[in-house]
Amino acid sequence: MKVIIIGGVAGGASAAARLRRLNEKCDITIFERTNYVSYATCGLPYYIGDIITDEKQLTVQTPTSLFNRFNINVKTSHEVIDIDATKKIVIVKDLINGKVFNESYDKLILSPGAKPIIPSFYKKSERVFTLRTIEDTKKVKSYINSNKVSNAVVIGGGYVGIEIAENLTNLGISVDLVEANNQVLSIFDTDMVSFVHSTLRNNGIKLHLNSHVELLEEINDQMVVKLNNEDLVSDIVIVAVGVTPDTILAEKIGLKQGVKGSIIVNEHMQTSIEDIYAVGDAVMVKNYVTEEDALVPLAGPANKQGRIAADNICGIASSYQGSLGTSILKVFDLNAASTGLNEKTLINKKMNYEKVILSPLAHAGYYPNAKILTLKVLYEKESLRLLGAQVIGYDGVDKRIDVIATAIKSNLKAVDLKDLELAYAPPFSQAKDPVNLAGFIIDNIENNLVKQFYYEDIEKLRQDPNAILLDTRTDFEYSRGHAEGFIHIPLDDLRKRINELDVKKRIYVMCQSGLRSYLATRILVQNGFDAYNFVGGYRLYSSLMSDK
Amino acid sequence: MKVIIIGGVAGGASAAARLRRLNEKCDITIFERTNYVSYATCGLPYYIGDIITDEKQLTVQTPTSLFNRFNINVKTSHEVIDIDATKKIVIVKDLINGKVFNESYDKLILSPGAKPIIPSFYKKSERVFTLRTIEDTKKVKSYINSNKVSNAVVIGGGYVGIEIAENLTNLGISVDLVEANNQVLSIFDTDMVSFVHSTLRNNGIKLHLNSHVELLEEINDQMVVKLNNEDLVSDIVIVAVGVTPDTILAEKIGLKQGVKGSIIVNEHMQTSIEDIYAVGDAVMVKNYVTEEDALVPLAGPANKQGRIAADNICGIASSYQGSLGTSILKVFDLNAASTGLNEKTLINKKMNYEKVILSPLAHAGYYPNAKILTLKVLYEKESLRLLGAQVIGYDGVDKRIDVIATAIKSNLKAVDLKDLELAYAPPFSQAKDPVNLAGFIIDNIENNLVKQFYYEDIEKLRQDPNAILLDTRTDFEYSRGHAEGFIHIPLDDLRKRINELDVKKRIYVMCQSGLRSYLATRILVQNGFDAYNFVGGYRLYSSLMSDK
Repeated sequence: MKVIIIGGVAGGASAAARLRRLNEKCDITIFERTNYVSYATCGLPYYIGDIITDEKQLTVQTPTSLFNRFNINVKTSHEVIDIDATKKIVIVKDLINGKVFNESYDKLILSPGAKPIIPSFYKKSERVFTLRTIEDTKKVKSYINSNKVSNAVVIGGGYVGIEIAENLTNLGISVDLVEANNQVLSIFDTDMVSFVHSTLRNNGIKLHLNSHVELLEEINDQMVVKLNNEDLVSDIVIVAVGVTPDTILAEKIGLKQGVKGSIIVNEHMQTSIEDIYAVGDAVMVKNYVTEEDALVPLAGPANKQGRIAADNICGIASSYQGSLGTSILKVFDLNAASTGLNEKTLINKKMNYEKVILSPLAHAGYYPNAKILTLKVLYEKESLRLLGAQVIGYDGVDKRIDVIATAIKSNLKAVDLKDLELAYAPPFSQAKDPVNLAGFIIDNIENNLVKQFYYEDIEKLRQDPNAILLDTRTDFEYSRGHAEGFIHIPLDDLRKRINELDVKKRIYVMCQSGLRSYLATRILVQNGFDAYNFVGGYRLYSSLMSDK
Repeated sequence: MKVIIIGGVAGGASAAARLRRLNEKCDITIFERTNYVSYATCGLPYYIGDIITDEKQLTVQTPTSLFNRFNINVKTSHEVIDIDATKKIVIVKDLINGKVFNESYDKLILSPGAKPIIPSFYKKSERVFTLRTIEDTKKVKSYINSNKVSNAVVIGGGYVGIEIAENLTNLGISVDLVEANNQVLSIFDTDMVSFVHSTLRNNGIKLHLNSHVELLEEINDQMVVKLNNEDLVSDIVIVAVGVTPDTILAEKIGLKQGVKGSIIVNEHMQTSIEDIYAVGDAVMVKNYVTEEDALVPLAGPANKQGRIAADNICGIASSYQGSLGTSILKVFDLNAASTGLNEKTLINKKMNYEKVILSPLAHAGYYPNAKILTLKVLYEKESLRLLGAQVIGYDGVDKRIDVIATAIKSNLKAVDLKDLELAYAPPFSQAKDPVNLAGFIIDNIENNLVKQFYYEDIEKLRQDPNAILLDTRTDFEYSRGHAEGFIHIPLDDLRKRINELDVKKRIYVMCQSGLRSYLATRILVQNGFDAYNFVGGYRLYSSLMSDK
């Protein structure tokens, strides 16, 4: 059996290695357009920032190591320019000498990946960069090393844009980050992402939200980035406005295509043409939660899909079960992670959902360096099905998102989070882990022990003569800052001062994290009040206010 | 309603706070024998080691704060010496003035905890300590502060013994750790615990395994600890040989008792006597995996049980679902975590199980500070039910055990670990997370792609004329150390040198972590050999050999 793989990164490399493990005799060839194979796409920004200093570190394997270990032929700088699916041959161009040749296959795996979107304002210049390959990365690095670069404009606040912005900042380069949307990292909700915004700003990055690039110009050895509202001048520009499936071959041969031209595959990673498989960022997957079509260009799914394609070629009927889109990002000292659906999506889909947001310590408060993490969990109202989560903080962010991703994948109900038995010792967690606490809150909501209100309700409540807005933090906390319109009774005084409140009015209670205000609502409700707890606490409120 | 709670730590405090949240009018009193309430038992060793420097940090709540916030009466230094369950009164002794009085209840919650086992060799002395309460801890600390303590013997290698040994070492005190068993931390298997042994030794702790204390003597202002094989002389002795349910009251009033005298409760935390509940380290629980009776004296379960008892008292029918015994320990820079059953237990129970042990990097190798973690996963052979896991390493140990604990709780199958979609970015994980890799290996075993052999097989195989032992690591690795009897062919040379091997013999292959040897077995099997992969790699082999 002769297998040809187009694209030697992540999914393609993973498929090749699994194929060899399953079939020692099969003839495996990878054609890779760039000069590198099996390289660490996710490491590229860190190479620019000198976190990874040795270029060799970026290549997990080389053509030689893949040949020696796996007996795989790797042809780098070889582009497959066409496929004849009837004759089962690929037409290959050697990019070094320009020669074109045919190669036959029994099975073909497409792993073309996703390419950076080139926006209409894009301008070709030695000062303007996109980032996909090691070559792209080396271009940025070599330009910075051999030219005076004191400032940079990064266009696009997605994962790559933010990682580049951080790494350039770490090199002492002043960064303007331009984002057309009202927030960076669209996978997060606006509430949670406010912590990312403040981290970016606190680290000196100038954040330009709601800013559209109208024109890129090169004037006097500098780039001028004309936005709808201002002009930015910089030494270099990085364009990172997202990626789109690289499907030029898929189009040419008439593969069935889905969202953004992506390749449609079945659960065995088979395309619409016999004996052609496809994996990685270019294929359309099912969203695991909604079962809708989705693009999830991430390394984890790509690697799993590569293994599954190889399995099926070798007669093992593995299936890809869809993607949750679990992802994580380090932004300076902050970590931000997400899995499943976000609230924006739930609103768009008009789903009947509930949300909890809490801000507990990531590990025992009495053990050194305990820091707050903020956790948002979304679930479906009647079924209690877990829909998604977002976690932002310092230590233990990755852990909590992975636990919830596992819970979603296992079809646990949202209340079941309270019963998870997670490892506790003071350096690692609290006796009630933040994930358990989320479960307790959900349990309280479902037992009608607490009613919630949200940031988006506050403006209206301020105008409502039948609403009392109450802050139950300490005198000190209240004096340092509080939400407009909120009167103040510290929680520990509430029982003795409860008569100051008008029982005919609805009471909306806020504290710092949401725990003390919950306790206050319990006291109030049992004294005949209609009381509501503010989700996310003053911590979230102030983060959102400062982000306005 | 009047509720009395006996014991104000973890489960008791948790029950009290939940009771108040559910019922603003109920009369809640906690009787606590010590002078402290709601204190951080798990933090006590770190207070001795000056990691936690402020004693106040150890008390999460004080009687005053519990009264102000929750309107709970806390009587510290009050011991309940008897209960009249018919009249529904408790008989209380004020330990300060010795006065005895009665207090009636409608509902009673017992949270007496577990007490240190006092072994027969125990000797009362100002130089001999046990550790349960803040008072105990302060005694140790004050003795160390006001006397010259240059060495200490810690008797018992459980969680507390090891944490104390570490913290004393960090104070510059030379520590002998004495353990009657052939390993510390009995919850771990001997293979995994070998990494803990080497960490203890590398940090200067003298480890005395298989050592029974025969006599404690105080001679010339020093303690002499006579073991079966040697005498140890030290300034202080800490006795930490385990805990046992503190059930003096349960016995007195004739509650149904189980393992080690523990209190038998139903899923609602109700004891055998009406209106008496019990929670925490003194109660018997169901092991979640085996559904057998178990004692799991851990803070997480205690806190959850407290909440559940309060729920049921207030008419919410919460249930405790049993314990996995998920736990974690920091030992110097090493972290060791466990969940579910260990292999020793499976052998004892004659269960038909399979194990995988792997040693991948905890995060991407090209990102700084990537370190190996070792992961052992146990599952039932036919059903593929996950039974337990152990993880030892540096970063990300807590994350992997929590993910697997969640998977066990969710009744995921062992092969399902390969499909979990966990968060990947270079600082946090690999595109194929260690947990996914465990799933891949399990998948390979179940698809008959690999057969395994184990450390315990090697001695016999060395004598077997029909077995070839093969090391497939590099020349450099092999020359630095290899297992006796293993011949050497580097993996990358195997295809061309395969004829050097006798196809009529069985081939047993080892590499460093188990990955390259797996690849070798795949090459061998497809060339007609009967080949076996060594579980855990030379990494585990050498750890076990140096632990002999």
